Amino acid sequence: MSTAIPVEPFDFVVFGGTGDLAVRKLLPALYLRDRDGELPPDTRIIAASRAGLDTSGYRDKVRGELGRFVPEHALDQETLQRFRARLDYASIDFADGTDWAELTTRLSDKSGKIRVFYLACAPALFGPICAQLAEHDLVDADSRVVLEKPIGHSLESARAINDAVGAVFEESQIFRIDHYLGKESVQNLLVTRFANTFLEPLWNSSWIDNIQITVSESLGVGARGDYYDGSGALRDMLQNHLLQMLCLVAMEPPTYVDRETVRDEKLKVLLALQPMTPKDVKRNTVAGQYVPGLSDGVAVPGYKEEVENPDSRTETFVAVKAEVRNWRWAGVPFYLRTGKRMERRLSEIIIEFKPVPHPMFPDSEGGGEPNKLVIQLQPNEGMRLQMTAKQPGPGGIRLRPVALDLSYTEAFAQPSPDAYERLLMDVVRGNPTLFMRRDEVEAAWAWVEPILSGWKQSERGPRKYAAGTNGPTDATTLIERDGRTWHEGATP
Amino acid sequence: MSTAIPVEPFDFVVFGGTGDLAVRKLLPALYLRDRDGELPPDTRIIAASRAGLDTSGYRDKVRGELGRFVPEHALDQETLQRFRARLDYASIDFADGTDWAELTTRLSDKSGKIRVFYLACAPALFGPICAQLAEHDLVDADSRVVLEKPIGHSLESARAINDAVGAVFEESQIFRIDHYLGKESVQNLLVTRFANTFLEPLWNSSWIDNIQITVSESLGVGARGDYYDGSGALRDMLQNHLLQMLCLVAMEPPTYVDRETVRDEKLKVLLALQPMTPKDVKRNTVAGQYVPGLSDGVAVPGYKEEVENPDSRTETFVAVKAEVRNWRWAGVPFYLRTGKRMERRLSEIIIEFKPVPHPMFPDSEGGGEPNKLVIQLQPNEGMRLQMTAKQPGPGGIRLRPVALDLSYTEAFAQPSPDAYERLLMDVVRGNPTLFMRRDEVEAAWAWVEPILSGWKQSERGPRKYAAGTNGPTDATTLIERDGRTWHEGATP
Repeated sequence: MSTAIPVEPFDFVVFGGTGDLAVRKLLPALYLRDRDGELPPDTRIIAASRAGLDTSGYRDKVRGELGRFVPEHALDQETLQRFRARLDYASIDFADGTDWAELTTRLSDKSGKIRVFYLACAPALFGPICAQLAEHDLVDADSRVVLEKPIGHSLESARAINDAVGAVFEESQIFRIDHYLGKESVQNLLVTRFANTFLEPLWNSSWIDNIQITVSESLGVGARGDYYDGSGALRDMLQNHLLQMLCLVAMEPPTYVDRETVRDEKLKVLLALQPMTPKDVKRNTVAGQYVPGLSDGVAVPGYKEEVENPDSRTETFVAVKAEVRNWRWAGVPFYLRTGKRMERRLSEIIIEFKPVPHPMFPDSEGGGEPNKLVIQLQPNEGMRLQMTAKQPGPGGIRLRPVALDLSYTEAFAQPSPDAYERLLMDVVRGNPTLFMRRDEVEAAWAWVEPILSGWKQSERGPRKYAAGTNGPTDATTLIERDGRTWHEGATP
Repeated sequence: MSTAIPVEPFDFVVFGGTGDLAVRKLLPALYLRDRDGELPPDTRIIAASRAGLDTSGYRDKVRGELGRFVPEHALDQETLQRFRARLDYASIDFADGTDWAELTTRLSDKSGKIRVFYLACAPALFGPICAQLAEHDLVDADSRVVLEKPIGHSLESARAINDAVGAVFEESQIFRIDHYLGKESVQNLLVTRFANTFLEPLWNSSWIDNIQITVSESLGVGARGDYYDGSGALRDMLQNHLLQMLCLVAMEPPTYVDRETVRDEKLKVLLALQPMTPKDVKRNTVAGQYVPGLSDGVAVPGYKEEVENPDSRTETFVAVKAEVRNWRWAGVPFYLRTGKRMERRLSEIIIEFKPVPHPMFPDSEGGGEPNKLVIQLQPNEGMRLQMTAKQPGPGGIRLRPVALDLSYTEAFAQPSPDAYERLLMDVVRGNPTLFMRRDEVEAAWAWVEPILSGWKQSERGPRKYAAGTNGPTDATTLIERDGRTWHEGATP
């Protein structure tokens, strides 16, 4: 179990330490790393929060929440006790310089420890918090800051945030987190591409017909309605998660899979994305918004009802046909889509290969589906090569689709760790490979902005789709007019 | 179960109808085809034999043998009764024209039925039997003849047999059987190569490092000693089975997988095999003969003791490094080996790809094995793509070998039919795709002969290897001096 190599001792300060992200993801991840022996004795976790608790109250709260978000079998008394003792609480009003005394005191033992400032709060606070950190002299060369998405809501606002954070931290100290990059199956995509030879000769426009990236959620906006109504699927998901996955699929082999090299290659992909003209936006993008429907057989309200904004034009679904204009990919469409209240929760990257150039089994029945490499991120992590095999049996050759399967859980007899477990330890180690660099974030915004402004200028709002379905019919048209169809995943 | 399309009614005459092959393979295969409803009512099976039985005695014998060689669950009374009624017996002295009356009578109802003459007897009888068939006017346009290996013991004797049989039957009526070609996994190799795109860009000297074909048997020569001592592993296995598999791996895509086209392509491969000079024979071939050892923990005699021939120089093991000199394959070694009394029963084709051109994960532990495609024929039929994946877990990227697996039995939830089931029905249908054409057999002999004569001229006999091991050390040297190793199969 505990094969992990301990990191250097660190103080982990979470702004928003009582919030949803901290409770559901960050603290369980740190707990599990503690359980594996990866956290040195001196390591502390300090919640900086306006929740009006104290350390003891916070420790009790966290104990309760761990019970909900850590698997039962991983909750042992020894780790729980050790972890509890690491927890600290500093009452603070983030942006208000008058209220930083408690946190400053907590961090006053300048023992050369690594300091991680995790900003699990609204992006509008990123700049002010960083300014205060500098003001109170809390930042040194061993400090890092972690920014949660969204990094702004436009190129301009992203630049403003990056400027403000960059005024205090060096770029090498800034970790813009995208938890999709911490998923095992996404990282395994790098290993599959670059520690094996068999994909490389296939991995280009000669052999690949199209690539699809789908991130569908079955839930609605829920409690995030306020934030979401000012954001939408394009900003919330496509600008970051989907484009990042696109980058990992499309990037050239870096010299090494290491620090800046991967980010250099991802940036090249973003810069190679064909910019969207107003005509492209009309033709190659679809915005959707869900109306009331059935989710898993239960009647659910539409988006406008959920956010109580009858005039909302915010898209809860987006489909985009993109193209990477470089030697490897020119002519290969990348179809991206993501949405809420879709039929089911499913995240998949589909590499669809070209069909055979010539059908060679004239008397065969069935078969003939093009090969596909399916990388599944949710609900399970795995990889599958869909191919055609011979149906066993005497008589004529009958073709049948089969799958060469790699289920992570089965192959390794252990569940994949949560993405945050890896990413938080990467922050402590100062390894930025799986985090977004400033230029990447800004390149992604630059590509996305014409879509946003095209939609804004359009008289029609987003297309309707019933909750529990896979988006508006226009999304189907988007791909079917190319003679292709969305891959809807294997029946579970 | 019975999805099979019935063939035309036929009379199936087995010369050697009471022999080992008929009892173990042919009759069970015909029984199972009958059970699936593939044999029309009029179909008869006539044993032509010198065993001195009569029809009733033969029927009883077959009933008993079916109990041994057909799976219990497939033995139902209805089929057994129907099958029994199809059986007939004709006492005959094959080569002696005076003794054909019984068979001629049995076949006297010239109802336009298809007639299959299956020569499950010594090759020396192939010519005389065919002459008698013609003499007794038993051959018409709807007749076919099936020849079991070996087709001769040299190019000259193979030509003599082919001439003698060809004097009576058209080449399109002659079915030279190689039961390896009837195996599901061998046929699936054709489907995998030609009904999928993903292998084609990999399938050449740019991406493939070497190809290995291993057919190892754990048994000794047993009751076949008399025949075997005049033959040996090169003639008995490599000249036919291993070279045929090599052909299917190496052949160019035919226009269709159909009748002559596949055989045309296989022939091209055989003709492209680099001819063996006397120097090549010394350097690139190894003959071995087993001495006493342990087979599955049990002490077993050596080959010389088994055949009671203390001076025997017959090889029970052969390893060959071959090269296919054409555009696709030049420079890729094909390592072939087969032997008796080896460590275990295993037939595999291994396609070993080149290693990654550059290791890209500098801090990773493990991994780095080249990709392999493993096609297993025995003991189980299946296919496996060995690749490198990321070991799940936080911390540095650790590489780990994993396999994308296609087990035939699992994928299709049914055991593969025996090769003979398919092949016998192909004979009745007159489909020669999976049978060896005269020119193929002779090209294979032409390539093999210099090895035979090189060994004959050598003063050293075959190298010794202990029963229960994987051949003589020279076979290891053969591949290891190229910096490669034999793939010894996954631990079962």
